[in-house]
Amino acid sequence: MMKDRPLILISNDDGFFSKGLRVLVETLAGLGDIIVMAPDGPRSGASGAITSEHPVRYNKVEEKDGLTIYKCTGTPVDCVKLALFELLPRCPDLVIGGINHGDNSAVNVHYSGTMGVVLEGCMKGVPAIGYSLCDHDPNADFNPMLPYVRKIAEQVLANGLPKGMCLNVNAPKGDELKGVRICRQTDASWGGEWVRGQHPRGGEYFWLTGKFTNNEPEAEESDRWALEHGYVAITPIQIDMTAYSLIGELKTWDLSV
Amino acid sequence: MMKDRPLILISNDDGFFSKGLRVLVETLAGLGDIIVMAPDGPRSGASGAITSEHPVRYNKVEEKDGLTIYKCTGTPVDCVKLALFELLPRCPDLVIGGINHGDNSAVNVHYSGTMGVVLEGCMKGVPAIGYSLCDHDPNADFNPMLPYVRKIAEQVLANGLPKGMCLNVNAPKGDELKGVRICRQTDASWGGEWVRGQHPRGGEYFWLTGKFTNNEPEAEESDRWALEHGYVAITPIQIDMTAYSLIGELKTWDLSV
Repeated sequence: MMKDRPLILISNDDGFFSKGLRVLVETLAGLGDIIVMAPDGPRSGASGAITSEHPVRYNKVEEKDGLTIYKCTGTPVDCVKLALFELLPRCPDLVIGGINHGDNSAVNVHYSGTMGVVLEGCMKGVPAIGYSLCDHDPNADFNPMLPYVRKIAEQVLANGLPKGMCLNVNAPKGDELKGVRICRQTDASWGGEWVRGQHPRGGEYFWLTGKFTNNEPEAEESDRWALEHGYVAITPIQIDMTAYSLIGELKTWDLSV
Repeated sequence: MMKDRPLILISNDDGFFSKGLRVLVETLAGLGDIIVMAPDGPRSGASGAITSEHPVRYNKVEEKDGLTIYKCTGTPVDCVKLALFELLPRCPDLVIGGINHGDNSAVNVHYSGTMGVVLEGCMKGVPAIGYSLCDHDPNADFNPMLPYVRKIAEQVLANGLPKGMCLNVNAPKGDELKGVRICRQTDASWGGEWVRGQHPRGGEYFWLTGKFTNNEPEAEESDRWALEHGYVAITPIQIDMTAYSLIGELKTWDLSV
């Protein structure tokens, strides 16, 4: 009977104690057996980073029927790699990142530890979904998006996803969601990114911050447009980053030496 | 006259002292004014990570005619963001990551701090190139690839690159290179990724390692094929990770709640 229950691996980049992860676990309870391996502290902006310069450790923090939670000293991607290698009795049916406290739409996918989790699951051949809420508040209200979180997970379990492809799901802040839109990644950019301070012992230090600019606010097929108009945005993402449209031109360049 | 000289920003993930960075600077000397902002220690596998939990600092380590080198406490992507914000008198003409000690072809692009540098430059609208040698030796012999490094940089300065697209250049180890091939990203996977050890105070720790498997060794258009057959592989990479081919199918799913 255990073999018939889906096995779901969850990680995130906000840490095992974050509200977003806890509400995700509650929302998916009943869909399958859930194993959480999440960082022991915040790893926002960890992207696809892996730990190469020192070893990592993990330990169990909670176990109850159908749910086991572990914390790990590594990055979000380390968590997925280590859980698959060390903890899981078989290949999981779903890898999920989130629910992230903060927006992972548009170019943010490149910095996102949540999407690092998802891309890693995808590279291991497992259907994978990242969930994010456009609200950085540690006590953010995830309730409006939760029915969509469950529905999307059910659909992915039922339909699967093609090899090398995964889902980046973002929900806007606010009580009234208008439904789901299937989107493409928005062209956007970050600027004015640093805040300067004076170190007590001399010299300057810099905090990363910045201003997000949507370069195509009118593009109705983009994920930012969906979010700005009250929809949950589902953006399919692929592992293959090749710029195929540039291959032909590059072949005309003189690159002999 | 200074305004006519190209401005080149270089970073990496092996640190400002690495041989690969030093030979890159020597190889590009004369092409323009070079500013290096590189991590103060190794950041292999940093991917697109940014530092969100603490501030970063930088300081100048070397200055001579046409070359200034800074080191930074942050990630490879932090280095690019901070150099653009703080150091550069204008938008550079080229952002370069490398030369990396180790292979960044195939799916390694997702973990690569070198490619983090390149993708960040690209997202800032600057033509960007990542160079890597398939040899992790800190004293690796970069000489065979250097004429290609220079030629590719010259061609990118002359021709530019389309918005949102950059180059991932990998060279095989060895004396005899057969030339350049324009490639796509290889489908590959990592497995068996951890080595276990015993902590002196009890409990286990895990070092990340792993075995790389090329899932399509016969694909002549792939970057791994080029490398395994003695060619320098140029793989154009794009910022837009949307899986366009999946959008139509997702639109047929029932995602109402």
